[in-house]
Amino acid sequence: MTRPSHVRPRAARTVSTSAVASADRPTAPKLQSHGRVFNFSAGPACLPAAVLEQAQADLLNWQGSGMSVMEMSHRGKEFIAITDKAEADLRSLLSIPDNYKVLFLQGGASTQFAAIPLNLAEEGDKADYVVTGAWSKKAIGEGKRFLLANAAATGDNKSIPDPSTWNLTEGAKYVHYCANETIGGVEFKAPPSVGDAPLVVDMSSNFCARPVDVSKYGVIYAGAQKNIGPAGVTIVIVREDLLGRARASTPAMLDWSVAAKDGSMYNTPPCWSIYMCGLVFAHVLANGGLEAVEANNEKKAKLVYDAVEASNGFYASPVAREARSLTNVPFTIPSSPDLEKAFIAEAAQAGMVQLKGHRSVGGMRASIYNFMPLEGVQTLADFMREFAARHA
Amino acid sequence: MTRPSHVRPRAARTVSTSAVASADRPTAPKLQSHGRVFNFSAGPACLPAAVLEQAQADLLNWQGSGMSVMEMSHRGKEFIAITDKAEADLRSLLSIPDNYKVLFLQGGASTQFAAIPLNLAEEGDKADYVVTGAWSKKAIGEGKRFLLANAAATGDNKSIPDPSTWNLTEGAKYVHYCANETIGGVEFKAPPSVGDAPLVVDMSSNFCARPVDVSKYGVIYAGAQKNIGPAGVTIVIVREDLLGRARASTPAMLDWSVAAKDGSMYNTPPCWSIYMCGLVFAHVLANGGLEAVEANNEKKAKLVYDAVEASNGFYASPVAREARSLTNVPFTIPSSPDLEKAFIAEAAQAGMVQLKGHRSVGGMRASIYNFMPLEGVQTLADFMREFAARHA
Repeated sequence: MTRPSHVRPRAARTVSTSAVASADRPTAPKLQSHGRVFNFSAGPACLPAAVLEQAQADLLNWQGSGMSVMEMSHRGKEFIAITDKAEADLRSLLSIPDNYKVLFLQGGASTQFAAIPLNLAEEGDKADYVVTGAWSKKAIGEGKRFLLANAAATGDNKSIPDPSTWNLTEGAKYVHYCANETIGGVEFKAPPSVGDAPLVVDMSSNFCARPVDVSKYGVIYAGAQKNIGPAGVTIVIVREDLLGRARASTPAMLDWSVAAKDGSMYNTPPCWSIYMCGLVFAHVLANGGLEAVEANNEKKAKLVYDAVEASNGFYASPVAREARSLTNVPFTIPSSPDLEKAFIAEAAQAGMVQLKGHRSVGGMRASIYNFMPLEGVQTLADFMREFAARHA
Repeated sequence: MTRPSHVRPRAARTVSTSAVASADRPTAPKLQSHGRVFNFSAGPACLPAAVLEQAQADLLNWQGSGMSVMEMSHRGKEFIAITDKAEADLRSLLSIPDNYKVLFLQGGASTQFAAIPLNLAEEGDKADYVVTGAWSKKAIGEGKRFLLANAAATGDNKSIPDPSTWNLTEGAKYVHYCANETIGGVEFKAPPSVGDAPLVVDMSSNFCARPVDVSKYGVIYAGAQKNIGPAGVTIVIVREDLLGRARASTPAMLDWSVAAKDGSMYNTPPCWSIYMCGLVFAHVLANGGLEAVEANNEKKAKLVYDAVEASNGFYASPVAREARSLTNVPFTIPSSPDLEKAFIAEAAQAGMVQLKGHRSVGGMRASIYNFMPLEGVQTLADFMREFAARHA
């Protein structure tokens, strides 16, 4: 370690660069053969090792610039090149039509829950929300601060309500739904038909997990920290004709047209998170694009659901078969909550971490996003079978 | 590079992990003896090499956890330890009293320009703004969307208006000012006395550049990307009695009391940026704290201002002596704008980058934040003298 010349200790001290003193360090888990754990976190989530290695190699001196990406002016030529390439590669991955803007914003999907009504409707206007779980419930809750938000349908956290029963509102400014409920593991397999109102979709937990037809949507938004990068950046893909409608009381930082006008640089963007997403996009493009991602994700999901189905009722999936998520797989051990605790603890000891289900659902949840390796899911499925055999 | 097993190329391809194709790469600058440039960017800005090296070492496997910090669940024990230590160290650095909450938020100071009136006042309420440059002008502009924002004083971008002339409003919900104007280089040397209204200060460009008495303020806020870390996180330090007052139309993500209640984890926080700030805080604590930072910053600023003063008018500072910023030093070559262009170009060739002044001010600007090494400023001052001698 070099000590920068400008900060002089007042007295002799040891330079401590550890974020956590050794006494406070968590117990080290068993690492897999590749020197890391299999991390089933619901997000932030695992990233490709090749991408992390690239970020590591360039950390103090990006591409000969003499600077870390974390140190660059966001208006300098180096960072502009990074952000332009990130956007171009995302457009390429999703075949985003030219009449859509791509915004790199801050604040997560939760900030968009407010931005959506502020950008698309006036106070007193109506909008429809399809409520299929915890996140769409949060979205409508926040929406109600800003307009008349109608629950067009409310699911049972286990299935998608039949679209023929949806109570859509005449003159709704938009229809909002959550493509994949991270907590419940309930996923739409295709965009619903909702008539003329713009379709607004929260894709936070299945963004870029498969190809999508962007032209079906008015607005697609997603936090990055599950399938495409680290936390700290939110992607908003918005059809251009929906810009310029924000109500007067919209904070400038929540106004999509302000962000679109300045290339997402109205103020300093979350540079490192955008850079990391860019590395991920380039990596995915170079490895077969979203078709390859989807094929692999389907293979992974099948491994876990098959392990549930083959367990003769030892494991159960709370979700109806046709609505089962590709990326978040909750499962339980109906015979005993104590066995669930043991399952989670033993899996962690074996280097499979973050398998505890959300507190509102209980049981286990395997989040198997884009960069969970097939090997990790295979290891989990094998453990599920072995654990069931021991306890059945 | 290892290729993750789950993404299979459809055809043989070369894995490209470069963010920018080689043809698009910026020309490599001259690097200094430590292998990097001296980066005078107004932000994001340079970070301590020791901190970057620590982040690099732990990038794929933080402290034996088997995960990158970018991959960790924000609710896992590892990241909770990181964020708790970051907050504790910042409290220690600034001696933050117990009746203040420390929030790690997203969206930059620009988001706070809206959050401040939304959290502290109802529509129709009054607040005072002291306008000393571009950023306080932006703050009052955004404030006007949400309440009656009064310009209690308006400066000339060169000095601080005499506080005895300020037109403070009876019953103002707060008084806002910008402690350091990044663009103009105009800085308050101490908090102004404004009576009973809570003092709200934007410290984005001089946060942690010296010790401050937090108890003088109702709210201190600052983007991280100049003096304490990378872009993507904004620190808000708020006196507890000012929480719980947000108006009903406040987006949840802009409501400080929501963030305070959930330890800044109402949703997924910008984990990597918080981690990096934590490494910086620990580094500063271990190297003499803010007293040492201030002494060094004063030494650095003196080098540049002295080079201006000693140039017999070749260089000029637009800012009145008593308001000159410790961290952002604009200067011009009054005899010739063409010489300014040559200065900036020659400095860049010599490995001193980002010295161009803001387009609204022109000339040069040396941003010499906490982690610009003394050696970098000495190199600049030497270059200034040599350049003047050549062209005087």
